[in-house]
Amino acid sequence: MRKKAIILLSGGLDSTTVMAIAKHEGFELYSMSFFYGQRHSYELNAAKNVAEVFKVKKHLVINIDLNKIGGSALTDDIQVPKARSLNSIKKGIPITYVPARNTIFLAHALAWSEVIKSFDIFIGVNAIDFSGYPDCRPEYISAFEHMANLATKTGVEGKIRIKIQTPLIKMTKSQIINKGIELGVDYSLTHSCYDPDKGGFACGLCDSCLLRKKGFEEAGFTDPAKYSNTA
Amino acid sequence: MRKKAIILLSGGLDSTTVMAIAKHEGFELYSMSFFYGQRHSYELNAAKNVAEVFKVKKHLVINIDLNKIGGSALTDDIQVPKARSLNSIKKGIPITYVPARNTIFLAHALAWSEVIKSFDIFIGVNAIDFSGYPDCRPEYISAFEHMANLATKTGVEGKIRIKIQTPLIKMTKSQIINKGIELGVDYSLTHSCYDPDKGGFACGLCDSCLLRKKGFEEAGFTDPAKYSNTA
Repeated sequence: MRKKAIILLSGGLDSTTVMAIAKHEGFELYSMSFFYGQRHSYELNAAKNVAEVFKVKKHLVINIDLNKIGGSALTDDIQVPKARSLNSIKKGIPITYVPARNTIFLAHALAWSEVIKSFDIFIGVNAIDFSGYPDCRPEYISAFEHMANLATKTGVEGKIRIKIQTPLIKMTKSQIINKGIELGVDYSLTHSCYDPDKGGFACGLCDSCLLRKKGFEEAGFTDPAKYSNTA
Repeated sequence: MRKKAIILLSGGLDSTTVMAIAKHEGFELYSMSFFYGQRHSYELNAAKNVAEVFKVKKHLVINIDLNKIGGSALTDDIQVPKARSLNSIKKGIPITYVPARNTIFLAHALAWSEVIKSFDIFIGVNAIDFSGYPDCRPEYISAFEHMANLATKTGVEGKIRIKIQTPLIKMTKSQIINKGIELGVDYSLTHSCYDPDKGGFACGLCDSCLLRKKGFEEAGFTDPAKYSNTA
């Protein structure tokens, strides 16, 4: 029987590349997306399309109540920062940080992993071309993995260790794009922008768009994302 | 300014006692309950009543999508075990275990703690008179606390350490009840049963009822819970 992997799938460039890597490694694919009161649903649609293209065994969309908790430009009515320099993106923790988001996502994946008996949870965190979010760093991932093995029936029974797989964590954005293209990823399926317009066109100016555009430039490929005229 | 505490409040005996302890320690109280597709809503009503009696600053009820994930008698259509001996309750992990439930609850509390700047999260876990759930043990709680301090802005900025407070973890059920009564808790507000009847009467036979009844007997107090005639 093939080993099962759960992939946290936002529909963005990173998680789609992670999906391709898990497929390449021979896992049976289960994907999980979250509706957490984010400002738009384009990324959820992108995730659904990616899941279909990769023929996942099951794609779960989980609702979470982060908008009741608030505290982020991605869930509250706070303006998304635009046109920041790459230096300032890499300094400090911006207002787009969603408190404990990856912990909440991974906790749900952990629950599902117990039910379907998957012991490999893939997440597309990256600590190189990133916005300084604390829950994208290797030391955080190790601590979550350690906790996961104490939290669960799987961990307590002790036969199999749950692994949080982070294949992109030390790659630059252009290395990620090169890897994805090597594995045949169609990046036109993906959505990265924090603040798209009503037609779903990317703004080209938020941190996420800026990191993506720089990645494609450095990799030497054309970014198939559709940007609005103002970008 | 008074320090803020977040209390995970199920409306049961343990979490209500924890609320009384946090109040006694002088914290400003914030409580959080979860609707996770459990079989009944009596415990959520109990939690709401407890929050009112303790005059919490804010009571949040968070919806989580555990029924999409399944895998437990408390969220799936699986029968709750009845009339087990106390020895068998303490052996192994029963079907009422909800995969990664405390991790999901604590992850939400962690998110809220960042937003309201509370650094003390109280949870009524107990590793003595309990059902063998892995996510109630001290080693799990320590691992979560360590992870929490790496996951968050608070943890990264490093001035204040987030604490997961578990005042009941090494107490017997009768010690918990004695403590609560000493602090003036009205246990008639609380609901413990996994499988109440349609009138909200406790079954008296599930693990949770059996542990509660034994606790009141040993503490020498009358249990104010309403049990159905079959109990």
